[in-house]
Amino acid sequence: MLSLGIDPGTATIGYGLVEELQDGSLRAVAYDVIRTPAGIPMWERLEQIYSAVSQIANSYRPDRSGVEELFFAKNVTTAITVAQGRGVILLALQQSGIPIYEYKPNYVKQAIAGYGSATKPQMQEMVRMLLGLESIPRPDDAADALAIAITDIHSSRFSGLT
Amino acid sequence: MLSLGIDPGTATIGYGLVEELQDGSLRAVAYDVIRTPAGIPMWERLEQIYSAVSQIANSYRPDRSGVEELFFAKNVTTAITVAQGRGVILLALQQSGIPIYEYKPNYVKQAIAGYGSATKPQMQEMVRMLLGLESIPRPDDAADALAIAITDIHSSRFSGLT
Repeated sequence: MLSLGIDPGTATIGYGLVEELQDGSLRAVAYDVIRTPAGIPMWERLEQIYSAVSQIANSYRPDRSGVEELFFAKNVTTAITVAQGRGVILLALQQSGIPIYEYKPNYVKQAIAGYGSATKPQMQEMVRMLLGLESIPRPDDAADALAIAITDIHSSRFSGLT
Repeated sequence: MLSLGIDPGTATIGYGLVEELQDGSLRAVAYDVIRTPAGIPMWERLEQIYSAVSQIANSYRPDRSGVEELFFAKNVTTAITVAQGRGVILLALQQSGIPIYEYKPNYVKQAIAGYGSATKPQMQEMVRMLLGLESIPRPDDAADALAIAITDIHSSRFSGLT
């Protein structure tokens, strides 16, 4: 079972691939961020995001993907910008034929750290431990994406029990 | 000069193609809406939007396109949903190699009706007159898209003067 977790954005998009081994342990296969340059038109950034996600999806061929839902209480302008990026991410995954699952930020925190208001350092330490890494994965957005991928694998186990 | 105007959305996306003739008059080449069904996953709707916009862009090969900017004062959830759709619209236009211009809703009203707080019936009547149509174009989102295309053609004239 290989899951691709994605932490959406427009300037920085985190991605992380987590594999569940036969014994149930988890392994980080790859993780990094996609960065798009400021100062170019939004549609060029969207094209870069779409291309990068398509390339990741087609290189690793994950069995499924988890994409974090957006949550913005206040800043509508930021929400619109990030949501445009999330739109092309979903499109790229859909066109690559990879099943998509969505997770709310609090759900990810609950799944990884056991409670929905876990801090970022707590989350990162849990990700490190769950994946058996020597140090906390960097950059932050990549660690977030790995947390989403782990959440997605947990979720797939529960689905399998029904 | 052929301009494609697009009124973004996820359930209903308006589009309108307006041609500027040699004598400066305007003609509606085509207009309609793209509808996506409720009750299917968002990524399938995004794929349908992307395919439809790509097909329109490649069939008509407009010289430029105008896409309305999103304006949501309050409802962030709606903003996020529509913005995801707008993201794949921008991607489709960019990948089709069509120059993209963005217009705020008030700018479109100003350009068409002469003031930024024009009502929808006033706007529709102006679009009908400017395009020499016998009746107001339907549905509403298609009329909105024609207004955006007319605004884009006006804007291109000003750009040409600099």
